[in-house]
This record gives sequence, structure tokens and C-alpha cells, in this order.
Amino acid sequence: MNDPAAPKSPAIAAPSVEHATNADDLGAPPPEMSAPEDAPRGVSRVDAVAASRRSFLSSSLLGAGALAAAARPAAAQPTPTTPARTTVSHYHLPANDKTVHWGFFSKSLPPLIQIQSGDFVTIETITHHANDDRDRMVLGDPGVESIFYWDKSRKGIDRRGAGPMDASLFGRGAGEGLGVHICTGPVAIENAKPGDVLEVRILDVNVRPCMNRNFAGKAFGSNAAAWWGFHYKDLLEEPKPREVITIYEVDATGERDYAKAVYNFRWFPQKDPFGTLHKTIDYPGVPVNHAYTKKTTGILKNVRIPVRPHFGVMGLAPKEADMVDSIPPSYTGGNIDNWRIGKGATMYYPVSVPGALFSVGDPHASQGDSELCGTAIECSLTGTFQFILHERASLVGTPLEKLDYPLLETQTEYVLHGFSYPNYLEALGGKAQSEIYSKSSVDLALRDAFRKMRHFLMTTQGLSEDEAISLISVGVDFGITQVVDGNWGVHGVLKKNLFTGEG
Amino acid sequence: MNDPAAPKSPAIAAPSVEHATNADDLGAPPPEMSAPEDAPRGVSRVDAVAASRRSFLSSSLLGAGALAAAARPAAAQPTPTTPARTTVSHYHLPANDKTVHWGFFSKSLPPLIQIQSGDFVTIETITHHANDDRDRMVLGDPGVESIFYWDKSRKGIDRRGAGPMDASLFGRGAGEGLGVHICTGPVAIENAKPGDVLEVRILDVNVRPCMNRNFAGKAFGSNAAAWWGFHYKDLLEEPKPREVITIYEVDATGERDYAKAVYNFRWFPQKDPFGTLHKTIDYPGVPVNHAYTKKTTGILKNVRIPVRPHFGVMGLAPKEADMVDSIPPSYTGGNIDNWRIGKGATMYYPVSVPGALFSVGDPHASQGDSELCGTAIECSLTGTFQFILHERASLVGTPLEKLDYPLLETQTEYVLHGFSYPNYLEALGGKAQSEIYSKSSVDLALRDAFRKMRHFLMTTQGLSEDEAISLISVGVDFGITQVVDGNWGVHGVLKKNLFTGEG
Repeated sequence: MNDPAAPKSPAIAAPSVEHATNADDLGAPPPEMSAPEDAPRGVSRVDAVAASRRSFLSSSLLGAGALAAAARPAAAQPTPTTPARTTVSHYHLPANDKTVHWGFFSKSLPPLIQIQSGDFVTIETITHHANDDRDRMVLGDPGVESIFYWDKSRKGIDRRGAGPMDASLFGRGAGEGLGVHICTGPVAIENAKPGDVLEVRILDVNVRPCMNRNFAGKAFGSNAAAWWGFHYKDLLEEPKPREVITIYEVDATGERDYAKAVYNFRWFPQKDPFGTLHKTIDYPGVPVNHAYTKKTTGILKNVRIPVRPHFGVMGLAPKEADMVDSIPPSYTGGNIDNWRIGKGATMYYPVSVPGALFSVGDPHASQGDSELCGTAIECSLTGTFQFILHERASLVGTPLEKLDYPLLETQTEYVLHGFSYPNYLEALGGKAQSEIYSKSSVDLALRDAFRKMRHFLMTTQGLSEDEAISLISVGVDFGITQVVDGNWGVHGVLKKNLFTGEG
Repeated sequence: MNDPAAPKSPAIAAPSVEHATNADDLGAPPPEMSAPEDAPRGVSRVDAVAASRRSFLSSSLLGAGALAAAARPAAAQPTPTTPARTTVSHYHLPANDKTVHWGFFSKSLPPLIQIQSGDFVTIETITHHANDDRDRMVLGDPGVESIFYWDKSRKGIDRRGAGPMDASLFGRGAGEGLGVHICTGPVAIENAKPGDVLEVRILDVNVRPCMNRNFAGKAFGSNAAAWWGFHYKDLLEEPKPREVITIYEVDATGERDYAKAVYNFRWFPQKDPFGTLHKTIDYPGVPVNHAYTKKTTGILKNVRIPVRPHFGVMGLAPKEADMVDSIPPSYTGGNIDNWRIGKGATMYYPVSVPGALFSVGDPHASQGDSELCGTAIECSLTGTFQFILHERASLVGTPLEKLDYPLLETQTEYVLHGFSYPNYLEALGGKAQSEIYSKSSVDLALRDAFRKMRHFLMTTQGLSEDEAISLISVGVDFGITQVVDGNWGVHGVLKKNLFTGEG
């Protein structure tokens, strides 16, 4: 765990990756990429020169964080003695109506691409709130337009959520909005099997620039204070209750590190193109007709929100059900909504189904711990990721052995994610996906975060239970991740500098 | 609120203050101090040259944080045009059996000293866990020995807690341990009246060095994983349940910024000198007889706990009851147990009774957010404080108007304290002091923290409710302060750099 020889910094993206994710290049196919056979529209791949892939993987692991370093089997780590050239594939996944799934995870979804451990993938992600201001977040961007397309006869993507396609449950629309996040993927990892651990390194994150020429050089996000927020039944001012959407402007160039509010408006019942009236924000992607809203400008005038670009939803398909609502996070990740899951962070997920089936979405420009009103600054982002598969057999005796929750590592911290129900699909049985919404509490999530932290300290540091508990009380901080995602979250932050490595 | 002319840094302690709090001088009376008439043993005062006290106060307010600056009435802020000499009193409150009260706040306690707004007080505070290792934390220190004195016939301080003196309730001892913290004080502030706000600036905090020559140059603290901890009914290893005390060594010189564990031991039923058996840690200050304990050394070997010296208990006497258990925090502060209440922080408290009656205790070397096992590294500290009284009339239209909770300000943040019950004494009626222990949840504390944060943003920043709620969700972090003090706590952290001051 504390091998002083193990480098502490996460792996560095190759120059070609950085080039491909430069904001200026978005929408144009990255250079030197070609589409794999049968790939969905726009999916492209760097042509790999298949040289010594295995040695690349070795050096990749050597360059990874402490956990990955500890997880590498010693026998598989030859030190190169001669100069060597290594190649690896770098894919680009654009976001469009052929590459995203909306509002659910599913082990049955065919993967967009199958990659090998060590490969890089640049993935575009689109906020499901883009239609809150179509002019600023949809228009002029072909991929986003294809996703949000909706006329009298057709939606670009019909299913939105894990509910019934005929909307027989609530009449909201196909999928019923039981799950709301636009997710890009899935990405399958070759040879990934249940029991393995998938390491996902977030190498770069960029804001998706607005493609409407009226707002050139800018980017935008939406914050919805919605009916599922912690504040909703606890309002002071009339009318009560109400839903309010605030549009934020984010710097698309990356030069400014803050967002500014542009205007807000109260949700007004919106009739969607199929004729269904949405009195509240009950179905994702309903185009807001601003003829009926009253925009208030000049809001939050002296406020700058520091940006913390991150992915609210990132994770793997679980085995427990075929269609899984994207809202409650669980042991394979998903909608964790922790703003620390951004550039420089590494996530470790337990693989639940063959191929792992990774998807990412719900991009955020910024969010506070608790995500109190129901959403963050929901803002389309593009990320570049590297995927490292740790096979079960290689994990015996390492900190990742039997990992059964999503674990975050940064250069300075481990962040362990507790939930009210660590695996709600298993714990709550057949009605789990509805019951989870009435059974959560922060207390339960702290209970789970405590247990995970204790286990982590006992297994990775070899502490006794008494040592672990004392250390937790005097040196570990617990924060409220979110109280708006059905399965509420508490995270424990363990700083690496607690450990001297002197053992 | 964001007057660019208002200096942002907290007031600086005068050189004499720093001298008086130098660790080397502890135990010796500070120079140039004389005892006020009728003062308890050891209480001393810098002789004030009563020159232009009023102008000092003005300049003091000018030098304070943003809130205090905003709270000053413009008419009372003449800009000095000629050189001026200002004097102020600086008191020293040692900790001994005549200067501390144990386990309770009370509006009926006679103050040790009465000071004027603007005065400085250096206050010694003693951990109630010192007798967990008498050799390291009591012996050789006359003040501490006087507090913990206990033989067959007499205790240095008999009452420990707000319970009955005849121990008719549980038979634990006088005061029943219903409240456990050794508090130094109270300090009365001249002219303080209910409705005023008391600003308390923490100018300096130093560890109290061990006075036992066998451990010269060191200092020690105790962490008890006790029956009131969040972990207690949720243990993995046998015997279950168990209480475990870990002794930590803290650097007394201030050169090292971390604590190291020395040893731990399982609580063994202890018979106190009066003959009462304490099967669990149910009464504070019971001398641990290490003939019955088994010390385990070599624990947490490769762990360094960064120190965050702070005061777990700091606050004012509330008006609602005459004897108030020191454990549950409330609107006048008390046992907030937030590690941010350390050097450089300023606290604002609503004054509830005449004179305000400030006390401080429960010193901690370090604690994590949640204080999960029940305690921090409980370690005696000495603090230097400055007290500024804001009279009710001066607060109209300022951010401190009608403040009804303990508010923390640092150079970079405001930290608002939410509790399961913001004023449990009022909310829960006659049985409040027992019922609070069964009614708390983190959910309730988050509810309170949210309401306070919304109110703070609406009043101090002039935001609408909708603006405030959006800002909270995208830019404010909520953490779990503690889940072990009866009235559980959640704090909201509002970073000052959210506000540009451009209005």
C-alpha cells in the first residue's frame, strides 16, 4: 500500500488524447482515427499498432495510483531494460441518438465498442437538462439535436427511463422518466468478468461549447430546483410549492474558473410535442416553450460559482435487473453525484456483468455536497478516460480484493461512497426500484460509509478494528454527497498523508 | 457585506497576549498582571491604562471580519486623524478547581471575571479525559491535579453534570455525568443583554505541555471509542460491545503538526475512590487504574494524525433552564464539536442571559467530521480570545440582526451550524434534556442547516429565495459535524469567494 517506490501520480494521457479532447476539436473527428466496423455513427478509433501491448499495460500500472500499484502482481512487472515502443487504442465516442441511452442502465444493452484494458476513450456526454434552454444548449449542435429531436410523430430517443414503453404507469411518456440521465455508452472491456475490478481514470474533462452562433465562445448549464429536491416542501415564499430553473453561463475556453447565473424562470406546465402536459418536471427532455415562462435576469449578480466539472453518473451495468433506473446510485456506481469525480480522479468499480458495460452521463459544471435542490449546474462535458481491468485472480491480497462499492482515488485522498442501501436492488427485492425512494436517510448512508471505511482501513492498512475506529473518529471527514437521488449518499474522505509509509 | 474598504483579516493579538500564551510560560503568572479583587485563585489581569477605550473598540471593529464590519453603525466609526494610544485589559484564566465548572452550563453561575467589550482573555482548558492516563495528563500539573482530585472523602470538583447531586437517578455520582465537559468560566461581558450578539475571536491556541518530568516536552490526548459512539452496536470483533481508549502523543512545541498513537486499552470496570463501580465510561474523571487494563503498544504505527487544535465546547449560558447538560449543542453554542473552531476562527453567539456568560472547554487536538466513535483526541489546550459585544440596537439591518444560532467565520468561509433541534430546550419542553438523546437524526440537522443557510443568504446577500436555493445546491457543501452529542449536527460551508463584491 505504501511502497515508496510506487509513483503517486495518476497516469498521464498521451499527447494524442489531449489533442483529441481539445474543446476546439469537438464535433470534428479526431485526427488519425478510423471507424471500427459496424460502429454506431461517429464512433472512431485510433488505429493501434499492435506492438507490445502487454508491456504497455505493465508500465501503465506502474504509473497508476497507489491502489493500482498495490494490485499489480509482482511477477507480471518486468522492468524494461531496452527502449520499447508501446501502442494503444484511443477511441472517440460522440454523443448522438445512436450512442446514448436515456435514463437507465442495462446489462442487455449492446456495447458501442469493445476495448482492451489500457485503452483510452474520449466520451462526449450531454446533459438531460439541455432543453431547459434549447437556444443555448441544443441548437446548432447536431449530436445534441439528434438526441432531443421531438415532433408530433417521433422522438430522437423514445425511451427515457426504465419504466414501461407504453407509459401505462403514469402517462408521462415512454420509459416514464423513471431514470432521467442521458448516458453515453456502454463501453465493453474485453475479458471483463463478474468479480473483476474496473479502474477508470479521468484524464481530462472539458466543457462542451455552445454551437449556436449567437452565443459563440460560451457554454451553458441548467440548475433545476425541482420537486425531488430537499427544499421542495419547505419553501418560504409564494407560490408554494414551485419549481425554478436557473440557467448558468460557463466559460467554454477554460480560462475562467467560475460560472455566472444568466436568468431563472418558474416551471410552467409544458405540453410536449406528443400532447402530454407536464405540470412538473416529471419527464426528461421536455422542450421548454419560453413563450409561457417569465425570465428573471440580473439574478445572483455578485456571485461566481467556482466550477468543478465532473460526471454525476458514471458506472457499470448491474446484474440484478435488466432495466435499472439511472437515478439511485448503487454498488456499481451510477448516479453518485460527487463533485470529486472529475479530472485527475480515478474510480474503481466492481464488475457485475460480462464486459463490465461502462456508461457515463449527467455531466455537471459544479455541485455542492448534498445537491440540495435536486440538481447541479447540469452542463454537457467531454471526458477522456483510460480503462484498466484488474482480473479477480490478480486482486488476491490487494486492497481491491472483493471491492463491492465504487471507490474514488485522487492524488491526495481516497473517497469511499456510502449509500442508504449499498446494493438496494438486492436488499429491497422485487420492488426495490420504487421502494428505494421512500426508505433512504443520511443516517443509513453514514452507517454504510462508516462500515466501508472501517473495512478499507483494516484490509488496506492492516489495522485492527480498534485502530480503525479511533482513526476514523479523529482523522476522517464524512460529508453528505446527495439527498436527492433515491438512495442517499455519504462519503468518507481519507487523506493519504495520514500514512507515513514507514509501517 | 462586501465593502472593499473593510479589511478582511481577523484582529491581531497584541504582543503581550502572545507572550502570555507561550507554552513555556504556562503555570507561571503572566508578567504585568495583577489579580482583580475577589478573583478566584490565579485569575489575573493586565492593568489597563484607561485611555480612549471607545476609540480602541472602533478600530477593533474596523479590523474584524466582514460580518463585524458590516455590523458597525456608520456613525460610530470616526476615522482617527491623529496618533492615538489605546489600552485594553488582558486577563488570564488558569484552570483549577476554583475556575472550572464540570458538565453543565448555567445562567446562575457567578462569573469568574467581568470584562468589557474589546478585552482579551487567555483561558486554560482541561480535557475531561485526562484521568484516562493520569501519569501523562494530570500528574505534576497543579491546576489539573486540583480538578481531578478524588480520595475516599472528597473530590476536587464534586458536581460533574447537570443531574442530581445525590446521584439518586443512576447512582453514578454527583451530577450523574449528565454532561461531561470541564469548562473554564464563565466570563461575563459588561452590559451584555439578551438579544445582543457576542463575537469571540480565537487569536491563539496552544497545546498544554505535560508537566510530568518523565514526559518532558510532550503532550498527550485521549480518544475514547465509547458507548455513545456511532459504531458501538455495530462492531465486528469480539468482545462485543467494548469501549476502547487510545492515548495519543501530541507535540507540545508546535513544531510538528501531527499526533501519533502511543497505546490503547479496553475499558475495564473501574471502581472510583467513593466505591462506585463504573462498568462503562458513564461518569467523567474516573481515575483509570492501569493495574487492571491491558495496554497494547505499537498501534497505528505508520499513521500521523494532522492536528487541528480546537475547542469542542464553547458558548454561552442559555436562558431556558438553570442547569443544562453540556453535551447537546444548541443555539448558544456549547458542544458543537466542529474542528474548524480553532485559531483564526471567529464565533458569533446570540446572547441569551445578562452578561452573556461565556465558557470554554472540551479541548481537542484533532477530530474528524462526525466524531464517529464518540470523542476526538481530547487534549488540554490554552486559548487566547477577544470578545466584542454587538448590542442589539447596533445590529438592525446588519447580517447579525436576530442571529439565533452559533455562526463561525474564518478568513475564507462562513460555517453555519445546523442541529437536529436548533433550540432543543425550547422545542422539546420539560423533558428536553433526556428526550434529545432519542430524537436526533442527520436528516433533521441537514434540514436545519439548509434553513439557516437560506436565511443567511437572503439576509446578508439580499438574495431571493430562488437565488439562495440554487446557490446552495451548486455551491455550498454540507458536512456531518457530529452524530454523538445528543443533538446531532450538520454544518454548511459557504465560501466567501463565491461573492465578488461587485453587487
